[in-house]
Amino acid sequence: MKRRDFFRNAALTAAGAAVLSPFESIARDGRRVAVTHSVAKTAKNIIFMVSDGMSVGTLSMANMLNERRDGKLCNWMSLYHAGVANRGLMDTASANSLVTDSSAASSAWGGGVRVNNGVLNVTPDGSKPTPILRKFKAAGKAVGCVTTVPITHATPAGFCVNSNSRNDQPGIALMYHDLRFDVMMGGGTEFFSADKREDKQDVFGKFAASGFQVAKTREEMLAIDAAAKEAPILGVFHQDGLPYALDRENDETLKKATPSLAEMVGTALRHLKKNRQGFVLQVEGGKVDWGAHANDVGALLYDQLAFDEALAVAIAFAEAEGDTLVIVTTDHGNANPGFFGGNANFERMFNFKHTNEWVLQGINRDFTAAQVIERLEHAQGIVIKADEAMRLLTHYVTDRNEEGLYNPYRLPFAELAQIQQHYTSVGWGSMDHSGDHVEIAAYGPGRELLKPFVRNTDLHNLMLEATGVTVG
Amino acid sequence: MKRRDFFRNAALTAAGAAVLSPFESIARDGRRVAVTHSVAKTAKNIIFMVSDGMSVGTLSMANMLNERRDGKLCNWMSLYHAGVANRGLMDTASANSLVTDSSAASSAWGGGVRVNNGVLNVTPDGSKPTPILRKFKAAGKAVGCVTTVPITHATPAGFCVNSNSRNDQPGIALMYHDLRFDVMMGGGTEFFSADKREDKQDVFGKFAASGFQVAKTREEMLAIDAAAKEAPILGVFHQDGLPYALDRENDETLKKATPSLAEMVGTALRHLKKNRQGFVLQVEGGKVDWGAHANDVGALLYDQLAFDEALAVAIAFAEAEGDTLVIVTTDHGNANPGFFGGNANFERMFNFKHTNEWVLQGINRDFTAAQVIERLEHAQGIVIKADEAMRLLTHYVTDRNEEGLYNPYRLPFAELAQIQQHYTSVGWGSMDHSGDHVEIAAYGPGRELLKPFVRNTDLHNLMLEATGVTVG
Repeated sequence: MKRRDFFRNAALTAAGAAVLSPFESIARDGRRVAVTHSVAKTAKNIIFMVSDGMSVGTLSMANMLNERRDGKLCNWMSLYHAGVANRGLMDTASANSLVTDSSAASSAWGGGVRVNNGVLNVTPDGSKPTPILRKFKAAGKAVGCVTTVPITHATPAGFCVNSNSRNDQPGIALMYHDLRFDVMMGGGTEFFSADKREDKQDVFGKFAASGFQVAKTREEMLAIDAAAKEAPILGVFHQDGLPYALDRENDETLKKATPSLAEMVGTALRHLKKNRQGFVLQVEGGKVDWGAHANDVGALLYDQLAFDEALAVAIAFAEAEGDTLVIVTTDHGNANPGFFGGNANFERMFNFKHTNEWVLQGINRDFTAAQVIERLEHAQGIVIKADEAMRLLTHYVTDRNEEGLYNPYRLPFAELAQIQQHYTSVGWGSMDHSGDHVEIAAYGPGRELLKPFVRNTDLHNLMLEATGVTVG
Repeated sequence: MKRRDFFRNAALTAAGAAVLSPFESIARDGRRVAVTHSVAKTAKNIIFMVSDGMSVGTLSMANMLNERRDGKLCNWMSLYHAGVANRGLMDTASANSLVTDSSAASSAWGGGVRVNNGVLNVTPDGSKPTPILRKFKAAGKAVGCVTTVPITHATPAGFCVNSNSRNDQPGIALMYHDLRFDVMMGGGTEFFSADKREDKQDVFGKFAASGFQVAKTREEMLAIDAAAKEAPILGVFHQDGLPYALDRENDETLKKATPSLAEMVGTALRHLKKNRQGFVLQVEGGKVDWGAHANDVGALLYDQLAFDEALAVAIAFAEAEGDTLVIVTTDHGNANPGFFGGNANFERMFNFKHTNEWVLQGINRDFTAAQVIERLEHAQGIVIKADEAMRLLTHYVTDRNEEGLYNPYRLPFAELAQIQQHYTSVGWGSMDHSGDHVEIAAYGPGRELLKPFVRNTDLHNLMLEATGVTVG
């Protein structure tokens, strides 16, 4: 799986200068590249990549951060710049809402029909379309999912199961056991551990007894990777979601205990490619969505970049193998963040060490304002004012708790985001999903099937068509 | 200029059902359409369309409004759906900022190099690239600009002049006289009337004395259109910007006095096409940007739809003539609006009659809360609460004035947008431009030159290359 020079595009000599990539000379004539991998050829494999809850502002800011700090486009934009991907805008609505949740969104792709928010592949009239990975499994392909949130969470589940509720994650863990898919990796130990589950079932043990290779740490995953056995892999590395990429990068303990998304993808691809009839893998950067819900800009952008790093692994694989369709997209916008001016403010984000979550989790009611200021400066290099520190502290001292789907500790994420906006110029439209049409791109054989404007449901048949799979 | 059935795409039978267009059967094979107009053929004409300050949320919401209310995709999305346009994402930065203003953005296209914000085609080192319409004029083409903001404003000016300041609109009006371009139409009487200009020059008279056909009302424009004379046209229909499309649509006086953007484009195209060597026309939906600055959702979405109607005129022309490249894009994001859930809230916007600007301009300090409620209900069908009405009224009674580039009367736009969000679920990240990468598409001969990721400056050479113009 040799990586080509594709992603090592040249450094910028000045703001706005052209970015050259090795594909440039090929891309210029506008035909040669289009032909390389995508002439009416059947895809043997699909890697379906989802940066969950990625508004276009998230993609733009991550790309700008990459380019301004490191002098190169992010990998996603590099695909565009080299002219080797087809692009579309995708309508993301669900059956009952212009603004989808992740379960209805993944079901649209996974089952090919729109379902109500909160539901996994059960239509409003009660029918249960077969989730796509089961179709591919039945057709002889290896299948799997990799994510940074619980592996039982909505986006992977939408490719795997039918369920009236995305919240039945303990039940979904059991369904995964019976499906016996080839690779399932992410977070969510609470749905597999006997001591965390309400029903006290040892689901980890159940998987092991059924012949799965089970990994609970990064090292265990790498050992399984190195052993290269054929048995299916279950990897569950953390309770709830995995740590944000930014926090993980700056914490040696986390870095040792948990794999990056790119590392999980590498392991998954090496495992799946053993199957001669090919494979289909879903990859989710799930905490991009959580970062958006929290208006946590460090969490958001560095998880987007971690997703982008995983994309590089996927593209390198696809380049080396030549028979792999890579789809890269998001399921819906979230919070519609934007950078609203002042280059120096943007550059502050180059040196972030920790997320807002890390900052806020470490504060308690005994903190002084000076300690709050110090903690934020250590984490992000931002020196807030005393009255701003007091605004944050008030949330801890009084009962002014914030609510939120991914805010179990009721931390003052909105307050911090508002304060932070003065220093980063990043603004947010909300803490919820948006109805925006979203970015989608395809690389490799079958990419010509992607129309410039698509419904989320169109992707289901696109995947089947690209691989020539008609059964299921 | 017969309109094909292209834009009359079939009604949706259900949410999420496929939208069919007459191009559908052609588009499905993925090749036939791509070939139709764009096989290495030189474009005789270019129509360059700019929805100023259009974040992707603006385009998405306008499309959703069109589709959910009228059962058809907006024209921009119809182009995508039919597979007849090439798409890109565009990096919009200026020489000195990740977040551009409209003058630097238009200069990037117009002059081919990045300049600082506030400047028109004068580089940081003082050089003055020739604006693109002058290059096309020198090559024998007819040229012009049409906009809903003052014709002397940044976006048209960036295709026409070199100036150290976009604010020198009185000076730019005089430069336009000397340039003698074929069609210049928009708002901005204050820069042409002797009684409004500081220097008391009668610039309208100066244009007339030089042989221009001058229109100050819609009827005068239509008369010039009907007369079909060859002399160049100056149309200036309103002080400052033209009325918002939504307010114009619901005010017979405004409707009679001022043309729609689509009407101006029709007149411009009929005039420009007389030139046998072709033409280049810039079309700006300039008040989309102003609506975003004001977080005025009715202004924003209905001006975006008015722009989309003008796009239909351009595409119909291009379809009929077959030798016209249409580029459609924006210069930068603005405010990153999004719809954040609740279909009923979205549907409220179907029946808006007036913008927030109209609502706020009609309120004064003598209003009661009940009168404020009544005015908003009349304009938008939204019944706000008494305390919300009081929050608005407070701005009139006290000196709590809001500031803003396009808010000369210091009206409480931000306050109203925050109140309105409870009823429409539309949220805003800011009242300023954003650094987002933006949507760009091309239709017709030369569309294959549009790469999937471009810098704004790339468009300059793209236009020259598409037309085979090398002089200038």
